Amino acid sequence: MVHRPDLYKALEGVAWELGRADSPALAALVDEMAGVIGAAQGPDGYVNSFVQAGLDVRWDDLVKSHELYCIGHLVQAGIAHRRATGSSSLFDVAVRAADCAVRDFGGGRRRDSDGHEEVEMALVELFRETGERAYLELARQFLDDRGYGLLGTDGHFEPAYFQDAVPVREQTEVVGHAVRAVYLIAGMVDVYVETGDQTLLDAAVAQWESMTARKAYVTGAVGLRVEGEAFGDPYELPPDLGYGETCASIGVVMASWRLLLATGEARFADAVERALHNLVAASTSVERTGFFYSNPAQRRVPHEPAPTDTRPTRAAAPGTRPPWFECACCPPNVLRTIASLGAYVATWSPAGVQVHQYVPATVAADLPEGRVELEVATAYPLDGVVDVRVVTSPDEPWELRLRVPAWAGDGARLEVDGEGRAAGGPGYAAVARRWEAGERVRLVLPVAPRLTVAHPSVDAVRGQVAVERGPVVLCFESPDQRGLDLERVELLVDRPLEEETVELLGQRVVRVRARGVQRDDSGWAGSGWATLGQEPAGAAREVELVAVPYALWANRGPSTMRVFVPARRG
Amino acid sequence: MVHRPDLYKALEGVAWELGRADSPALAALVDEMAGVIGAAQGPDGYVNSFVQAGLDVRWDDLVKSHELYCIGHLVQAGIAHRRATGSSSLFDVAVRAADCAVRDFGGGRRRDSDGHEEVEMALVELFRETGERAYLELARQFLDDRGYGLLGTDGHFEPAYFQDAVPVREQTEVVGHAVRAVYLIAGMVDVYVETGDQTLLDAAVAQWESMTARKAYVTGAVGLRVEGEAFGDPYELPPDLGYGETCASIGVVMASWRLLLATGEARFADAVERALHNLVAASTSVERTGFFYSNPAQRRVPHEPAPTDTRPTRAAAPGTRPPWFECACCPPNVLRTIASLGAYVATWSPAGVQVHQYVPATVAADLPEGRVELEVATAYPLDGVVDVRVVTSPDEPWELRLRVPAWAGDGARLEVDGEGRAAGGPGYAAVARRWEAGERVRLVLPVAPRLTVAHPSVDAVRGQVAVERGPVVLCFESPDQRGLDLERVELLVDRPLEEETVELLGQRVVRVRARGVQRDDSGWAGSGWATLGQEPAGAAREVELVAVPYALWANRGPSTMRVFVPARRG
Repeated sequence: MVHRPDLYKALEGVAWELGRADSPALAALVDEMAGVIGAAQGPDGYVNSFVQAGLDVRWDDLVKSHELYCIGHLVQAGIAHRRATGSSSLFDVAVRAADCAVRDFGGGRRRDSDGHEEVEMALVELFRETGERAYLELARQFLDDRGYGLLGTDGHFEPAYFQDAVPVREQTEVVGHAVRAVYLIAGMVDVYVETGDQTLLDAAVAQWESMTARKAYVTGAVGLRVEGEAFGDPYELPPDLGYGETCASIGVVMASWRLLLATGEARFADAVERALHNLVAASTSVERTGFFYSNPAQRRVPHEPAPTDTRPTRAAAPGTRPPWFECACCPPNVLRTIASLGAYVATWSPAGVQVHQYVPATVAADLPEGRVELEVATAYPLDGVVDVRVVTSPDEPWELRLRVPAWAGDGARLEVDGEGRAAGGPGYAAVARRWEAGERVRLVLPVAPRLTVAHPSVDAVRGQVAVERGPVVLCFESPDQRGLDLERVELLVDRPLEEETVELLGQRVVRVRARGVQRDDSGWAGSGWATLGQEPAGAAREVELVAVPYALWANRGPSTMRVFVPARRG
Repeated sequence: MVHRPDLYKALEGVAWELGRADSPALAALVDEMAGVIGAAQGPDGYVNSFVQAGLDVRWDDLVKSHELYCIGHLVQAGIAHRRATGSSSLFDVAVRAADCAVRDFGGGRRRDSDGHEEVEMALVELFRETGERAYLELARQFLDDRGYGLLGTDGHFEPAYFQDAVPVREQTEVVGHAVRAVYLIAGMVDVYVETGDQTLLDAAVAQWESMTARKAYVTGAVGLRVEGEAFGDPYELPPDLGYGETCASIGVVMASWRLLLATGEARFADAVERALHNLVAASTSVERTGFFYSNPAQRRVPHEPAPTDTRPTRAAAPGTRPPWFECACCPPNVLRTIASLGAYVATWSPAGVQVHQYVPATVAADLPEGRVELEVATAYPLDGVVDVRVVTSPDEPWELRLRVPAWAGDGARLEVDGEGRAAGGPGYAAVARRWEAGERVRLVLPVAPRLTVAHPSVDAVRGQVAVERGPVVLCFESPDQRGLDLERVELLVDRPLEEETVELLGQRVVRVRARGVQRDDSGWAGSGWATLGQEPAGAAREVELVAVPYALWANRGPSTMRVFVPARRG
């Protein structure tokens, strides 16, 4: 009835950290925890302290028990630890737990699925790590058995909530609990990659497309419906009550990353970028001590400051980030994501090297022709200049691909050896040639601030605009507005936007200034409704509106905030 | 931990029915139930079967137990029964229960409040029925003791949820659980009327105004936030996820009616009209066998048909009206409201007679000058003609007041003895004169369909219009749109609206036809967001949009529906 995979997710994060920098203290911590978990483990490998303490019955309530979900996280932590450090202390514990699941479920011995998908990804990764096909087969079995209405028949939620209403290969719309849905997409792609089962990829892409086109907010939020932390109907995207769980956007990163690897299509890397620069970044306080579980995009009145512990499933998150949650799934998910962020930057294939995310980085790849080393230098997204210097290259030609995000339109430019040209539309700008050490490629992305509007079916922000700049979504927060009431401002969309680089909360950020008006709505005192053409008249005075990165909101005490503000012409 | 005042509310409704038409069967039912409740009652008058069965401890958890709330409903039922029939069978049981509350709480013996306001109204009414001041004093005590943060300190909800964060006289904004909040307003006005405590009236009016101007939907829905069935922030009025509990709008009727009696101001009768003609009417199926608990104003996709029993506190009501609810508070509340509807039609005072709601009716009043009898004939709201014929009148002059709703603007006309004149703006058109039997007054209200817009801070329907016609809010429901996708229509606001009277679902109603367009949004396939000025172009073909009364929606199977549709010029 409860899930506490927080330890496993935290261990995975610590493991990735150990891969970045050695730390005897952290290494000892993982070993100690591996010992504790291993000692708690039953003789057949089963481990779940809640069940083992007698608070639930083993495998008895897969809808809610999260037993396989927790084992999945344990497996991911064990693999991370082994890959990062070479140690098998945690990995061996994880393998025993996975073997237990294989024995009890594998080979069709029990046709059932966990209420919360996650173990599918872990089992595929364990197959990759060990070559043991039973893990892959069990992952595929869990997918095969999902969608027959076994889950959610007796409780508050329907089978669709658990992605169990329609067989996974036939489901083309993303539905239900958001984290579960995106973890399922990730697992489907994993099984596709190892089995070539195209029906899984097709369904995963269709679900991802339905999410991206109709059920995702501009901040990267998904699962906007508070009830059940779930996907709502298409275009149901309320900014004020929108849930937007941190874990769900992390799940979007995980699913999109796998789709990128499976297809090579830049739109999946665009989704990773949107989530990381906005919602995932916003989820954590600048001091790194507080976390948002739900991430609204509008706050009409300041909420109370964060309590020390809070229930996450509230319609309204507190005014600042709490340090802890009753269900603490998001903070350790942030930890393991940040600790493994380097993995999302670049890939290589026999054809060459692909750079997907722009951060200062060293990229090394062992192409068939020989070793490639690149140095990426950039202040992105402060500016749009990305410099890639070839440090090492084989003599044979290979192809360098640099992602041109969809938001760049056809405004990106590419300079190779000082020769400039348009980089082409969204996708990848490719340069295939012989390279010499020291040669440079510069990608210049058009990060000037722009106004963004929603699909005309998004009722919640109709007639409104948001400010984006490069990959960054900005917001209008009360501390920057010098007393203006954000519920009565409109942005003059025909005036130019001005940007300036400033220090804010210890970070260098670009702030955008827009012209707008502050309405006087006092004529509306009596009613919220009026006949068209007979609305109470009200003056509007011109004002300046100031937008800062959404990722930084709610770091200056309880505030009001809007990502979208009403648009005004003239 | 549970409340089941459904029996008491149903008995109140049956009692009012008995006042309209004699029924031996119903009379026997009430007497039988009075016997059952009386037999269950403890020797000191305490009655609550849940507590008496040992499932809770008496007066131990007032936040959740609803013990005083249930006693309040019992008292209201007993008074209704005695007033309607002269029988004291139920009344005596109710008095013993009220006396128990007085003994345990009265005179400041225990300073506490019920988590759900209701008993205050009942106690004032019992004072009126009996003249016993202890009931009035206890009602005042409960109000005096509310607002000190005693409720909601240990659970999911805050004191504000229980209207307990600020002393009731200092609270100027309506907050928290909607039914509780409006029941509290009603109780405050009741105590004001009997004590002259102006601070209570002022606070009640302020709370009502905050609700009407900033927290009420055009359908009469209040308490739009699903979580906690509660009032949200000002202008947080989502039509799709808006909760709008039936009981809350019934509570608005109760509170507004009391404010009308206390002040004589027509705006309160306007609120009664809006709620009754729209949300309350919509709550019940045309067959009178199904009920909506929550009443959304937009449905993007058809929902499942009603189950036989459902939990009311869901983000999304079923596609049709369920016959029963796990918490069945709304259906009996509808019953007692409909059974006592006649009480809302007219009032009299020493100055004359006031007609507030327009239905075919006989109105009798014993003015100081003598008896007045009026006959009201009208097809309202099918048309706007209200004929009042004087049947009996004393010789001395008296004043007839007819309400001119705010929606009529200055478009109402009054004819007295065939002489026409403008009826004046919203408020009451008054005719003070000597009357002869047979004389007629005709009020003609401008019920032509009109387009309604929201306050510019209502983000959820910015750039949209609703169709209203007289007091009736219309909606666009899929069965009337010949296959159009309601998520891609826009209404051409510069074109005339056409109306036609038709039979629909066994009722004569006025249907409104508007010109609009159906957009082709296929260019938006990839993303829900675009740069302003670079949105995917899409054709729009002109179509006809058909609006029917909102009260009738969801009677033709699961459907899509919108009250507001995007506005288009040209």
